[in-house]
Amino acid sequence: MQSTRIVLASRPTGMPTAENFRTETVELPALAPGEALLQTLYLSLDPYMRGRMSDAPSYAPPVRIGQPMVGATVSRVLETTDDTVRSGDIVLGYGGWQTHSVEPVRILRRLDPAAAPPRTALGVLGMPGFTAYSGLLTIGRPQPGETVVVAAATGPVGATVGQLAKIRGARAVGIAGGPKKVALLRDYFGFDAAVDHRAPDFAEQLAAATPDGIDVYFENVGGAVFDAVLPRLNRYARIPVCGLIAGYNDTELPPGPDRLGLFMSMVLRRSLTVRGFIQTEFAAEQYPAFLADTAGWIAEGRMKYLEDVVDGLDNAVEAFRGLLVGRNLGKLVIKVAD
Amino acid sequence: MQSTRIVLASRPTGMPTAENFRTETVELPALAPGEALLQTLYLSLDPYMRGRMSDAPSYAPPVRIGQPMVGATVSRVLETTDDTVRSGDIVLGYGGWQTHSVEPVRILRRLDPAAAPPRTALGVLGMPGFTAYSGLLTIGRPQPGETVVVAAATGPVGATVGQLAKIRGARAVGIAGGPKKVALLRDYFGFDAAVDHRAPDFAEQLAAATPDGIDVYFENVGGAVFDAVLPRLNRYARIPVCGLIAGYNDTELPPGPDRLGLFMSMVLRRSLTVRGFIQTEFAAEQYPAFLADTAGWIAEGRMKYLEDVVDGLDNAVEAFRGLLVGRNLGKLVIKVAD
Repeated sequence: MQSTRIVLASRPTGMPTAENFRTETVELPALAPGEALLQTLYLSLDPYMRGRMSDAPSYAPPVRIGQPMVGATVSRVLETTDDTVRSGDIVLGYGGWQTHSVEPVRILRRLDPAAAPPRTALGVLGMPGFTAYSGLLTIGRPQPGETVVVAAATGPVGATVGQLAKIRGARAVGIAGGPKKVALLRDYFGFDAAVDHRAPDFAEQLAAATPDGIDVYFENVGGAVFDAVLPRLNRYARIPVCGLIAGYNDTELPPGPDRLGLFMSMVLRRSLTVRGFIQTEFAAEQYPAFLADTAGWIAEGRMKYLEDVVDGLDNAVEAFRGLLVGRNLGKLVIKVAD
Repeated sequence: MQSTRIVLASRPTGMPTAENFRTETVELPALAPGEALLQTLYLSLDPYMRGRMSDAPSYAPPVRIGQPMVGATVSRVLETTDDTVRSGDIVLGYGGWQTHSVEPVRILRRLDPAAAPPRTALGVLGMPGFTAYSGLLTIGRPQPGETVVVAAATGPVGATVGQLAKIRGARAVGIAGGPKKVALLRDYFGFDAAVDHRAPDFAEQLAAATPDGIDVYFENVGGAVFDAVLPRLNRYARIPVCGLIAGYNDTELPPGPDRLGLFMSMVLRRSLTVRGFIQTEFAAEQYPAFLADTAGWIAEGRMKYLEDVVDGLDNAVEAFRGLLVGRNLGKLVIKVAD
């Protein structure tokens, strides 16, 4: 069996370009015991993949040059040497940017297409949803009446954060780029207020949208949004940090002055909690509850989601580049096969 | 009854000077019900007082111009209209920088001179000790075998942090200025390693003293020490932030590049927890346990303390200026009367 795959050809400087990737077709190895041959149906594209393209030290090793780009996939089992899955099963796997993959069965999760559309296992019922759930509820801990702010708020993490904040009785303020996304935040996702970070008076709009200050800022973008949030943080505010997409393509530090000491003095004077996290650290304890809770909220209409499905693995590179500048609308997935 | 007091004459720019203070003698008011007339025996001098001299927004209101400088005191009750204390009692109060004060009895705490030298209520058995106890145990949570780093380590907060780390089975690394303090850290307080932040190769020494990285950095100084600590922080490291004395006299931000985004990316990639705090937020829950635990450790010889007693309220301003640049050796107190 052959697989067509997109491999990392070179490490990007700044925004990845088409030249950093290469498409190739390889022969897959025969199945060893405990493995399955999978056909990729949907590939998840997520901001963290930009980090894996670099070899800066991080919580996960980088993709090696010449290896396929990593990524979660919804796949169909074509063949297996392990009887815990069967041919034809739909599973969540980690096949990466390729049409077919061989994976150990123990890392796969069987999906029930009757319970939820399988694609949701890449979004609201998958890693992005659990990032929002674990980070907001464990670190952010919004209380009734508090104000929760999140950016990239039409994305799968941000949209879940805002709706979870509402479920917990807090006030949800979303930040997004452009009037279309801002309207979606209010009209579709039910945020209490929404602000366009591209507006010239963004900081003033954010201040007006947070008259009682900010108690939880769920950080997934950094940059200019963080700068506007900082002066609004209340005493005891919590900042779960799951991503900093605005800076992922930076090639040098911004010019001064150096605000690190100023920030630390805010942390001190306002008793702030800043906590970086990766959802995996909470998975063992919280994943089953997350799946049950979220499925319930979706069924009750309290948790909505939005998907941006791009057709064809050939379009993955351009779609990924768009993701890094917010061109997608909702959870970005590549439809690889029917 | 008259009180001689040191009032805030003007707000400092940078390092406070003698001109920012004024000594005056005032007539104290007659006692209202529930009050006590106190004679100050010892006045505590602490870094936080620099913050109260400025009118930048903070967790506590600034000292007003013309008002006495604030401060905890060990005092003798001379007269009272409340029978919960008696004339002659030694109490912990908040008389500030003056020889006598009138205070509500409900805020006083009676001290038993037979149980512990009353002066310790300003240090190891008072606010600085509790800052170390609550911040290290609640936020830092050192585990056996982990590495805890603290600066200003011969001071009452730092020395307690190091010894508490040892009590919890962690490795304690202290940072202090000059060979005399560094020797004290090892020989008197029992730190596992001690580093001089004035040494030209400070960062290299700190790296050598933390071969397994840093799991808890108890932040009370900021500045160049923080810069040297940052690259040593392990995944899941905790940073309780109780003070930033290195920057208290800064009048402008340091030049660039701006490292705030870089710091946030470290928070993310290493799943760091950064938490500013003021000990008062933990007092209701933890103060009784702190007093009992610490008294026990002192009795067992597991918790030592060091005091720097300066004679005479006249010397308070110069002693306070020295505190801001580390000229004191141990907990700084002014002996105001016998």
